[in-house]
Amino acid sequence: MTQTAAPRPDAYTPTDRTVPTRSRERAAYDHEMVHAILDEGYVCHLGFVRDGAPVVLPTLYGRVGERLYVHGSTGSRPLRMAGQADPGLRVCLTVTHVDGLVLARSAFHHSINYRSVVVHGVAHQVTDPQEKRAALDALVDHVVPGRSRDSRPADTKELAATAVLRLDLGEVSAKLRTGGPNDEPEDLGLPYWTGVVPVSTTHGAPVPADDLAPGTEVPAYLTAL
Amino acid sequence: MTQTAAPRPDAYTPTDRTVPTRSRERAAYDHEMVHAILDEGYVCHLGFVRDGAPVVLPTLYGRVGERLYVHGSTGSRPLRMAGQADPGLRVCLTVTHVDGLVLARSAFHHSINYRSVVVHGVAHQVTDPQEKRAALDALVDHVVPGRSRDSRPADTKELAATAVLRLDLGEVSAKLRTGGPNDEPEDLGLPYWTGVVPVSTTHGAPVPADDLAPGTEVPAYLTAL
Repeated sequence: MTQTAAPRPDAYTPTDRTVPTRSRERAAYDHEMVHAILDEGYVCHLGFVRDGAPVVLPTLYGRVGERLYVHGSTGSRPLRMAGQADPGLRVCLTVTHVDGLVLARSAFHHSINYRSVVVHGVAHQVTDPQEKRAALDALVDHVVPGRSRDSRPADTKELAATAVLRLDLGEVSAKLRTGGPNDEPEDLGLPYWTGVVPVSTTHGAPVPADDLAPGTEVPAYLTAL
Repeated sequence: MTQTAAPRPDAYTPTDRTVPTRSRERAAYDHEMVHAILDEGYVCHLGFVRDGAPVVLPTLYGRVGERLYVHGSTGSRPLRMAGQADPGLRVCLTVTHVDGLVLARSAFHHSINYRSVVVHGVAHQVTDPQEKRAALDALVDHVVPGRSRDSRPADTKELAATAVLRLDLGEVSAKLRTGGPNDEPEDLGLPYWTGVVPVSTTHGAPVPADDLAPGTEVPAYLTAL
Protein backbone atom coordinates (compact mmCIF):
# COMPACT_ATOMS: atom_id res chain seq x y z
CA MET A 1 0.00 0.00 0.00
CA THR A 2 1.41 3.30 -1.07
CA GLN A 3 -1.16 5.44 0.72
CA THR A 4 -1.88 5.17 4.40
CA ALA A 5 -5.18 7.06 4.51
CA ALA A 6 -8.06 5.20 6.18
CA PRO A 7 -10.26 3.25 3.74
CA ARG A 8 -13.34 5.20 2.62
CA PRO A 9 -16.64 3.42 2.14
CA ASP A 10 -17.34 5.38 -1.04
CA ALA A 11 -13.94 4.86 -2.65
CA TYR A 12 -11.64 2.06 -3.82
CA THR A 13 -8.53 1.69 -1.70
CA PRO A 14 -5.43 2.71 -3.66
CA THR A 15 -2.72 0.09 -4.09
CA ASP A 16 0.77 0.09 -5.56
CA ARG A 17 -0.75 -0.86 -8.85
CA THR A 18 -3.41 1.86 -8.90
CA VAL A 19 -1.30 4.81 -7.73
CA PRO A 20 0.40 6.21 -10.82
CA THR A 21 4.09 6.94 -10.68
CA ARG A 22 3.43 10.24 -12.49
CA SER A 23 0.64 12.85 -12.40
CA ARG A 24 -0.93 11.52 -9.21
CA GLU A 25 -3.27 14.50 -9.12
CA ARG A 26 -5.04 12.97 -12.12
CA ALA A 27 -5.97 9.77 -10.27
CA ALA A 28 -9.36 9.27 -8.62
CA TYR A 29 -10.77 6.40 -6.60
CA ASP A 30 -14.34 7.31 -5.69
CA HIS A 31 -17.06 4.89 -6.73
CA GLU A 32 -19.23 7.57 -8.31
CA MET A 33 -16.51 8.75 -10.68
CA VAL A 34 -15.43 5.21 -11.58
CA HIS A 35 -19.01 4.05 -12.19
CA ALA A 36 -19.79 7.12 -14.31
CA ILE A 37 -16.79 6.51 -16.57
CA LEU A 38 -17.58 2.80 -16.87
CA ASP A 39 -21.26 3.43 -17.61
CA GLU A 40 -20.52 5.88 -20.41
CA GLY A 41 -18.76 3.22 -22.48
CA TYR A 42 -19.32 -0.30 -23.67
CA VAL A 43 -16.00 -1.30 -25.27
CA CYS A 44 -13.11 -2.10 -22.96
CA HIS A 45 -9.60 -3.36 -23.64
CA LEU A 46 -9.05 -6.61 -21.78
CA GLY A 47 -5.48 -7.62 -21.05
CA PHE A 48 -4.30 -11.02 -19.97
CA VAL A 49 -1.09 -13.05 -20.13
CA ARG A 50 -0.75 -15.94 -22.55
CA ASP A 51 2.46 -18.00 -22.64
CA GLY A 52 4.17 -15.21 -20.72
CA ALA A 53 3.23 -12.50 -23.24
CA PRO A 54 0.58 -9.79 -22.89
CA VAL A 55 -2.56 -9.89 -25.02
CA VAL A 56 -4.94 -6.93 -25.29
CA LEU A 57 -8.31 -7.45 -26.99
CA PRO A 58 -11.22 -5.05 -27.41
CA THR A 59 -14.46 -6.50 -26.07
CA LEU A 60 -17.88 -5.42 -24.79
CA TYR A 61 -18.55 -5.15 -21.08
CA GLY A 62 -21.42 -4.48 -18.72
CA ARG A 63 -21.62 -3.40 -15.07
CA VAL A 64 -23.93 -4.66 -12.35
CA GLY A 65 -23.14 -2.94 -9.07
CA GLU A 66 -19.55 -3.73 -8.14
CA ARG A 67 -19.12 -6.37 -10.81
CA LEU A 68 -18.09 -6.11 -14.44
CA TYR A 69 -18.96 -8.76 -17.00
CA VAL A 70 -17.42 -9.61 -20.36
CA HIS A 71 -18.60 -12.38 -22.62
CA GLY A 72 -17.50 -14.41 -25.56
CA SER A 73 -17.75 -17.72 -27.25
CA THR A 74 -16.90 -20.67 -25.02
CA GLY A 75 -14.24 -21.38 -27.67
CA SER A 76 -12.45 -18.04 -27.40
CA ARG A 77 -9.02 -17.93 -25.81
CA PRO A 78 -9.46 -15.77 -22.70
CA LEU A 79 -12.73 -17.48 -21.81
CA ARG A 80 -11.22 -20.93 -22.18
CA MET A 81 -8.24 -19.80 -20.13
CA ALA A 82 -10.49 -18.50 -17.36
CA GLY A 83 -12.42 -21.73 -17.33
CA GLN A 84 -9.36 -23.96 -17.29
CA ALA A 85 -7.28 -22.12 -14.75
CA ASP A 86 -8.60 -23.07 -11.36
CA PRO A 87 -7.98 -19.72 -9.67
CA GLY A 88 -9.43 -17.79 -12.61
CA LEU A 89 -7.71 -15.54 -15.12
CA ARG A 90 -5.67 -12.54 -14.02
CA VAL A 91 -6.77 -9.58 -16.13
CA CYS A 92 -6.48 -5.84 -16.49
CA LEU A 93 -9.59 -4.21 -17.93
CA THR A 94 -9.29 -0.64 -19.20
CA VAL A 95 -11.95 1.78 -20.43
CA THR A 96 -10.96 5.09 -22.03
CA HIS A 97 -12.95 8.11 -23.25
CA VAL A 98 -11.20 10.84 -25.23
CA ASP A 99 -12.67 14.28 -24.55
CA GLY A 100 -10.31 16.66 -26.28
CA LEU A 101 -7.06 17.35 -28.09
CA VAL A 102 -4.88 19.72 -26.07
CA LEU A 103 -2.69 21.86 -28.29
CA ALA A 104 0.03 23.68 -26.40
CA ARG A 105 2.51 26.13 -27.90
CA SER A 106 5.29 23.61 -27.27
CA ALA A 107 5.20 20.11 -28.77
CA PHE A 108 6.21 18.78 -25.35
CA HIS A 109 3.02 19.99 -23.64
CA HIS A 110 0.61 18.59 -26.21
CA SER A 111 -1.82 16.24 -24.53
CA ILE A 112 -5.24 14.65 -24.58
CA ASN A 113 -8.17 15.31 -22.28
CA TYR A 114 -9.49 11.92 -21.30
CA ARG A 115 -11.16 9.85 -18.62
CA SER A 116 -10.08 6.27 -18.08
CA VAL A 117 -10.68 3.47 -15.61
CA VAL A 118 -8.25 0.62 -15.02
CA VAL A 119 -9.43 -2.48 -13.17
CA HIS A 120 -6.99 -5.12 -11.96
CA GLY A 121 -8.25 -8.48 -10.77
CA VAL A 122 -8.97 -12.11 -11.35
CA ALA A 123 -11.85 -12.93 -13.67
CA HIS A 124 -13.98 -16.00 -13.09
CA GLN A 125 -16.42 -17.79 -15.33
CA VAL A 126 -20.02 -17.28 -14.26
CA THR A 127 -21.66 -20.63 -13.65
CA ASP A 128 -24.92 -19.57 -12.00
CA PRO A 129 -27.57 -19.47 -14.79
CA GLN A 130 -29.45 -16.55 -13.23
CA GLU A 131 -26.30 -14.45 -12.87
CA LYS A 132 -25.33 -15.35 -16.43
CA ARG A 133 -28.68 -14.16 -17.79
CA ALA A 134 -28.50 -10.94 -15.80
CA ALA A 135 -24.94 -10.38 -17.03
CA LEU A 136 -25.94 -10.84 -20.68
CA ASP A 137 -28.84 -8.41 -20.21
CA ALA A 138 -26.40 -5.93 -18.68
CA LEU A 139 -24.05 -6.32 -21.64
CA VAL A 140 -26.81 -5.52 -24.14
CA ASP A 141 -28.19 -2.67 -22.03
CA HIS A 142 -24.72 -1.18 -21.61
CA VAL A 143 -24.58 -0.63 -25.37
CA VAL A 144 -28.22 0.45 -25.79
CA PRO A 145 -30.06 1.10 -22.51
CA GLY A 146 -33.44 -0.61 -22.60
CA ARG A 147 -32.65 -2.94 -25.49
CA SER A 148 -32.50 -6.25 -23.61
CA ARG A 149 -36.25 -6.12 -22.93
CA ASP A 150 -36.92 -5.42 -26.60
CA SER A 151 -35.17 -8.45 -28.16
CA ARG A 152 -35.42 -12.20 -27.96
CA PRO A 153 -33.56 -13.48 -24.88
CA ALA A 154 -30.88 -16.14 -25.31
CA ASP A 155 -32.23 -19.68 -25.47
CA THR A 156 -30.64 -22.68 -23.77
CA LYS A 157 -28.36 -23.46 -26.71
CA GLU A 158 -27.17 -19.86 -27.02
CA LEU A 159 -26.56 -19.65 -23.27
CA ALA A 160 -24.48 -22.81 -23.43
CA ALA A 161 -22.40 -21.39 -26.30
CA THR A 162 -21.67 -18.17 -24.41
CA ALA A 163 -19.15 -17.87 -21.63
CA VAL A 164 -19.36 -14.93 -19.24
CA LEU A 165 -16.51 -13.69 -17.09
CA ARG A 166 -17.06 -11.77 -13.87
CA LEU A 167 -14.55 -9.25 -12.57
CA ASP A 168 -15.11 -7.64 -9.18
CA LEU A 169 -14.42 -3.93 -8.84
CA GLY A 170 -11.82 -4.04 -6.09
CA GLU A 171 -8.47 -2.77 -7.30
CA VAL A 172 -9.64 0.14 -9.40
CA SER A 173 -8.61 3.63 -10.32
CA ALA A 174 -9.82 6.37 -12.60
CA LYS A 175 -7.50 8.80 -14.31
CA LEU A 176 -8.53 12.11 -15.83
CA ARG A 177 -7.11 15.08 -17.60
CA THR A 178 -9.29 18.15 -18.09
CA GLY A 179 -8.73 21.78 -18.97
CA GLY A 180 -6.49 23.69 -21.30
CA PRO A 181 -2.82 23.52 -22.22
CA ASN A 182 -0.12 24.10 -19.59
CA ASP A 183 2.56 25.97 -21.45
CA GLU A 184 5.87 27.08 -19.96
CA PRO A 185 5.85 30.78 -18.96
CA GLU A 186 8.61 31.55 -21.45
CA ASP A 187 6.48 30.13 -24.29
CA LEU A 188 3.44 32.34 -23.74
CA GLY A 189 4.59 34.86 -26.34
CA LEU A 190 4.98 32.30 -29.14
CA PRO A 191 2.68 32.89 -32.11
CA TYR A 192 1.11 29.42 -32.31
CA TRP A 193 -2.62 28.83 -31.87
CA THR A 194 -3.26 27.14 -28.54
CA GLY A 195 -6.36 25.62 -26.99
CA VAL A 196 -8.49 22.50 -26.99
CA VAL A 197 -10.36 20.70 -29.76
CA PRO A 198 -13.35 18.92 -28.18
CA VAL A 199 -13.76 15.26 -29.14
CA SER A 200 -16.95 13.29 -28.72
CA THR A 201 -18.62 10.10 -29.85
CA THR A 202 -21.79 10.59 -31.84
CA HIS A 203 -24.55 8.25 -32.94
CA GLY A 204 -26.02 8.63 -36.41
CA ALA A 205 -29.62 7.99 -37.43
CA PRO A 206 -30.47 4.29 -37.05
CA VAL A 207 -30.19 2.37 -40.36
CA PRO A 208 -32.86 -0.36 -40.56
CA ALA A 209 -31.87 -3.86 -41.71
CA ASP A 210 -32.92 -4.76 -45.25
CA ASP A 211 -35.37 -7.31 -43.94
CA LEU A 212 -36.97 -5.13 -41.25
CA ALA A 213 -40.74 -5.52 -41.44
CA PRO A 214 -42.23 -2.40 -43.07
CA GLY A 215 -43.90 -0.12 -40.55
CA THR A 216 -41.64 -1.11 -37.63
CA GLU A 217 -40.98 2.14 -35.81
CA VAL A 218 -37.62 3.20 -34.41
CA PRO A 219 -37.90 2.58 -30.66
CA ALA A 220 -37.65 5.51 -28.23
CA TYR A 221 -34.47 4.12 -26.61
CA LEU A 222 -32.71 4.54 -29.97
CA THR A 223 -33.86 8.07 -30.70
CA ALA A 224 -32.65 8.95 -27.18
CA LEU A 225 -29.05 7.88 -27.92
CA MET B 1 2.46 -21.03 -38.03
CA THR B 2 -1.20 -21.83 -38.45
CA GLN B 3 -1.37 -20.90 -42.12
CA THR B 4 0.85 -22.38 -44.77
CA ALA B 5 0.25 -19.85 -47.54
CA ALA B 6 3.39 -18.28 -49.02
CA PRO B 7 4.37 -14.96 -47.42
CA ARG B 8 3.04 -11.95 -49.32
CA PRO B 9 5.15 -8.82 -49.67
CA ASP B 10 2.13 -6.61 -49.02
CA ALA B 11 0.84 -8.46 -45.96
CA TYR B 12 1.93 -9.47 -42.48
CA THR B 13 2.48 -13.21 -42.10
CA PRO B 14 -0.17 -14.72 -39.82
CA THR B 15 1.05 -16.50 -36.71
CA ASP B 16 -0.62 -18.56 -33.99
CA ARG B 17 -1.09 -15.36 -32.06
CA THR B 18 -2.64 -13.36 -34.88
CA VAL B 19 -5.04 -15.96 -36.27
CA PRO B 20 -8.21 -15.73 -34.17
CA THR B 21 -9.73 -18.92 -32.82
CA ARG B 22 -13.17 -17.59 -33.82
CA SER B 23 -14.50 -15.56 -36.77
CA ARG B 24 -11.38 -15.96 -38.90
CA GLU B 25 -13.17 -14.32 -41.81
CA ARG B 26 -12.95 -11.06 -39.86
CA ALA B 27 -9.15 -11.08 -39.74
CA ALA B 28 -7.01 -9.19 -42.25
CA TYR B 29 -3.26 -8.94 -42.65
CA ASP B 30 -2.60 -6.60 -45.57
CA HIS B 31 -0.41 -3.59 -44.89
CA GLU B 32 -2.82 -1.13 -46.46
CA MET B 33 -5.72 -2.10 -44.20
CA VAL B 34 -3.54 -2.21 -41.07
CA HIS B 35 -1.95 1.17 -41.82
CA ALA B 36 -5.33 2.77 -42.55
CA ILE B 37 -6.76 1.63 -39.21
CA LEU B 38 -3.66 2.72 -37.33
CA ASP B 39 -3.57 6.12 -39.04
CA GLU B 40 -7.18 6.90 -38.22
CA GLY B 41 -6.51 6.83 -34.48
CA TYR B 42 -4.06 8.23 -31.99
CA VAL B 43 -4.92 6.48 -28.71
CA CYS B 44 -3.86 2.86 -28.33
CA HIS B 45 -4.11 0.47 -25.41
CA LEU B 46 -0.65 -0.78 -24.52
CA GLY B 47 -0.41 -4.05 -22.63
CA PHE B 48 2.62 -5.38 -20.83
CA VAL B 49 3.36 -7.76 -17.97
CA ARG B 50 4.43 -6.46 -14.59
CA ASP B 51 5.21 -8.89 -11.76
CA GLY B 52 3.41 -11.60 -13.71
CA ALA B 53 0.19 -9.61 -14.06
CA PRO B 54 -1.16 -7.85 -17.15
CA VAL B 55 -1.30 -4.04 -17.28
CA VAL B 56 -3.24 -2.15 -19.97
CA LEU B 57 -2.77 1.60 -20.26
CA PRO B 58 -4.18 4.06 -22.79
CA THR B 59 -1.46 6.08 -24.49
CA LEU B 60 -0.80 8.07 -27.65
CA TYR B 61 1.04 6.51 -30.58
CA GLY B 62 2.43 7.50 -33.94
CA ARG B 63 3.42 5.52 -37.03
CA VAL B 64 6.46 5.98 -39.26
CA GLY B 65 6.47 3.34 -41.99
CA GLU B 66 6.63 -0.07 -40.35
CA ARG B 67 7.34 1.31 -36.89
CA LEU B 68 5.03 2.47 -34.14
CA TYR B 69 6.15 4.84 -31.41
CA VAL B 70 4.75 5.53 -27.96
CA HIS B 71 6.21 7.99 -25.51
CA GLY B 72 6.11 8.90 -21.88
CA SER B 73 8.04 10.32 -19.03
CA THR B 74 11.35 8.61 -18.41
CA GLY B 75 9.89 7.95 -14.93
CA SER B 76 6.80 6.07 -16.10
CA ARG B 77 6.61 2.35 -15.48
CA PRO B 78 6.54 0.79 -18.95
CA LEU B 79 9.25 3.11 -20.21
CA ARG B 80 11.49 2.36 -17.25
CA MET B 81 10.82 -1.35 -17.74
CA ALA B 82 11.73 -1.17 -21.43
CA GLY B 83 14.91 0.66 -20.59
CA GLN B 84 15.95 -1.69 -17.83
CA ALA B 85 15.17 -4.96 -19.50
CA ASP B 86 18.01 -5.71 -21.85
CA PRO B 87 15.95 -7.47 -24.50
CA GLY B 88 13.25 -4.77 -24.41
CA LEU B 89 9.67 -4.95 -23.17
CA ARG B 90 7.22 -7.48 -24.57
CA VAL B 91 4.02 -5.62 -25.40
CA CYS B 92 0.69 -5.96 -27.13
CA LEU B 93 -0.55 -2.71 -28.67
CA THR B 94 -4.19 -2.51 -29.69
CA VAL B 95 -6.10 0.19 -31.58
CA THR B 96 -9.88 0.01 -31.91
CA HIS B 97 -12.45 2.10 -33.79
CA VAL B 98 -16.16 1.55 -33.18
CA ASP B 99 -18.27 2.11 -36.31
CA GLY B 100 -21.72 0.96 -35.31
CA LEU B 101 -24.06 -0.75 -32.88
CA VAL B 102 -25.57 -3.86 -34.44
CA LEU B 103 -29.04 -4.60 -33.09
CA ALA B 104 -30.30 -8.03 -34.01
CA ARG B 105 -33.72 -9.39 -33.13
CA SER B 106 -32.07 -11.85 -30.74
CA ALA B 107 -29.94 -10.66 -27.83
CA PHE B 108 -27.38 -13.31 -28.81
CA HIS B 109 -26.68 -11.76 -32.21
CA HIS B 110 -26.18 -8.22 -30.96
CA SER B 111 -22.76 -6.99 -31.96
CA ILE B 112 -20.56 -4.02 -32.76
CA ASN B 113 -19.17 -2.96 -36.10
CA TYR B 114 -15.53 -2.16 -35.50
CA ARG B 115 -12.04 -2.11 -36.93
CA SER B 116 -9.11 -3.03 -34.72
CA VAL B 117 -5.41 -3.70 -35.05
CA VAL B 118 -3.41 -5.81 -32.62
CA VAL B 119 0.39 -5.65 -32.67
CA HIS B 120 2.53 -8.14 -30.76
CA GLY B 121 6.20 -7.52 -30.29
CA VAL B 122 9.09 -6.31 -28.21
CA ALA B 123 9.35 -2.57 -27.66
CA HIS B 124 12.75 -0.91 -27.40
CA GLN B 125 13.74 2.51 -26.15
CA VAL B 126 14.81 4.82 -28.94
CA THR B 127 18.32 6.10 -28.28
CA ASP B 128 19.17 7.76 -31.61
CA PRO B 129 18.39 11.49 -31.17
CA GLN B 130 17.27 11.94 -34.77
CA GLU B 131 14.87 8.98 -34.62
CA LYS B 132 13.58 10.27 -31.30
CA ARG B 133 12.80 13.69 -32.75
CA ALA B 134 11.10 12.15 -35.78
CA ALA B 135 9.07 9.89 -33.49
CA LEU B 136 7.89 12.80 -31.35
CA ASP B 137 6.89 14.74 -34.48
CA ALA B 138 4.98 11.67 -35.66
CA LEU B 139 3.18 11.44 -32.31
CA VAL B 140 2.00 15.06 -32.52
CA ASP B 141 1.08 14.79 -36.20
CA HIS B 142 -0.86 11.58 -35.57
CA VAL B 143 -3.23 13.53 -33.34
CA VAL B 144 -3.37 16.68 -35.49
CA PRO B 145 -1.77 16.29 -38.93
CA GLY B 146 0.49 19.26 -39.62
CA ARG B 147 0.74 20.43 -36.02
CA SER B 148 4.38 19.50 -35.31
CA ARG B 149 5.62 22.19 -37.72
CA ASP B 150 3.36 24.75 -36.03
CA SER B 151 4.60 24.42 -32.45
CA ARG B 152 7.87 24.82 -30.58
CA PRO B 153 9.97 21.64 -30.94
CA ALA B 154 11.22 19.90 -27.81
CA ASP B 155 14.41 21.38 -26.39
CA THR B 156 17.31 19.36 -25.00
CA LYS B 157 15.86 19.19 -21.50
CA GLU B 158 12.44 18.11 -22.72
CA LEU B 159 13.98 15.48 -24.98
CA ALA B 160 15.95 14.09 -22.06
CA ALA B 161 12.79 13.89 -19.93
CA THR B 162 10.89 11.99 -22.61
CA ALA B 163 11.37 8.33 -23.34
CA VAL B 164 10.22 6.91 -26.66
CA LEU B 165 9.52 3.26 -27.34
CA ARG B 166 9.71 1.75 -30.81
CA LEU B 167 7.63 -1.26 -31.82
CA ASP B 168 8.15 -2.82 -35.24
CA LEU B 169 5.08 -3.88 -37.21
CA GLY B 170 5.86 -7.55 -37.64
CA GLU B 171 3.33 -9.74 -35.87
CA VAL B 172 0.18 -7.81 -36.72
CA SER B 173 -3.43 -8.42 -37.58
CA ALA B 174 -6.51 -6.35 -38.23
CA LYS B 175 -9.99 -7.48 -37.33
CA LEU B 176 -13.19 -6.02 -38.70
CA ARG B 177 -16.90 -6.44 -38.53
CA THR B 178 -19.10 -4.61 -41.02
CA GLY B 179 -22.67 -4.87 -42.21
CA GLY B 180 -26.01 -5.54 -40.62
CA PRO B 181 -27.30 -8.04 -38.08
CA ASN B 182 -27.17 -11.78 -38.76
CA ASP B 183 -30.37 -13.10 -37.23
CA GLU B 184 -31.41 -16.72 -37.19
CA PRO B 185 -33.93 -17.56 -39.95
CA GLU B 186 -36.56 -18.50 -37.37
CA ASP B 187 -36.26 -15.03 -35.76
CA LEU B 188 -36.96 -13.01 -38.90
CA GLY B 189 -40.66 -12.69 -38.04
CA LEU B 190 -40.09 -11.25 -34.57
CA PRO B 191 -41.45 -7.71 -34.13
CA TYR B 192 -38.28 -6.04 -32.81
CA TRP B 193 -36.59 -3.16 -34.62
CA THR B 194 -33.36 -4.38 -36.19
CA GLY B 195 -30.50 -2.59 -37.91
CA VAL B 196 -27.37 -0.61 -37.22
CA VAL B 197 -26.78 2.64 -35.33
CA PRO B 198 -23.72 4.35 -36.87
CA VAL B 199 -21.08 5.52 -34.39
CA SER B 200 -18.39 8.06 -35.15
CA THR B 201 -15.91 10.32 -33.46
CA THR B 202 -16.48 14.01 -34.02
CA HIS B 203 -14.36 17.09 -33.37
CA GLY B 204 -16.02 20.23 -32.04
CA ALA B 205 -15.06 23.79 -32.82
CA PRO B 206 -11.59 24.58 -31.40
CA VAL B 207 -11.74 26.36 -28.03
CA PRO B 208 -8.90 28.89 -27.70
CA ALA B 209 -6.87 28.99 -24.49
CA ASP B 210 -7.62 31.93 -22.19
CA ASP B 211 -4.20 33.40 -22.85
CA LEU B 212 -4.24 33.03 -26.64
CA ALA B 213 -2.99 36.26 -28.19
CA PRO B 214 -5.98 38.17 -29.62
CA GLY B 215 -6.15 37.93 -33.39
CA THR B 216 -4.48 34.51 -33.61
CA GLU B 217 -6.40 32.68 -36.30
CA VAL B 218 -7.46 29.04 -36.11
CA PRO B 219 -4.99 27.21 -38.38
CA ALA B 220 -6.26 25.41 -41.49
CA TYR B 221 -5.14 22.00 -40.20
CA LEU B 222 -7.64 22.40 -37.34
CA THR B 223 -10.61 23.48 -39.42
CA ALA B 224 -9.90 20.44 -41.62
CA LEU B 225 -10.33 17.98 -38.72
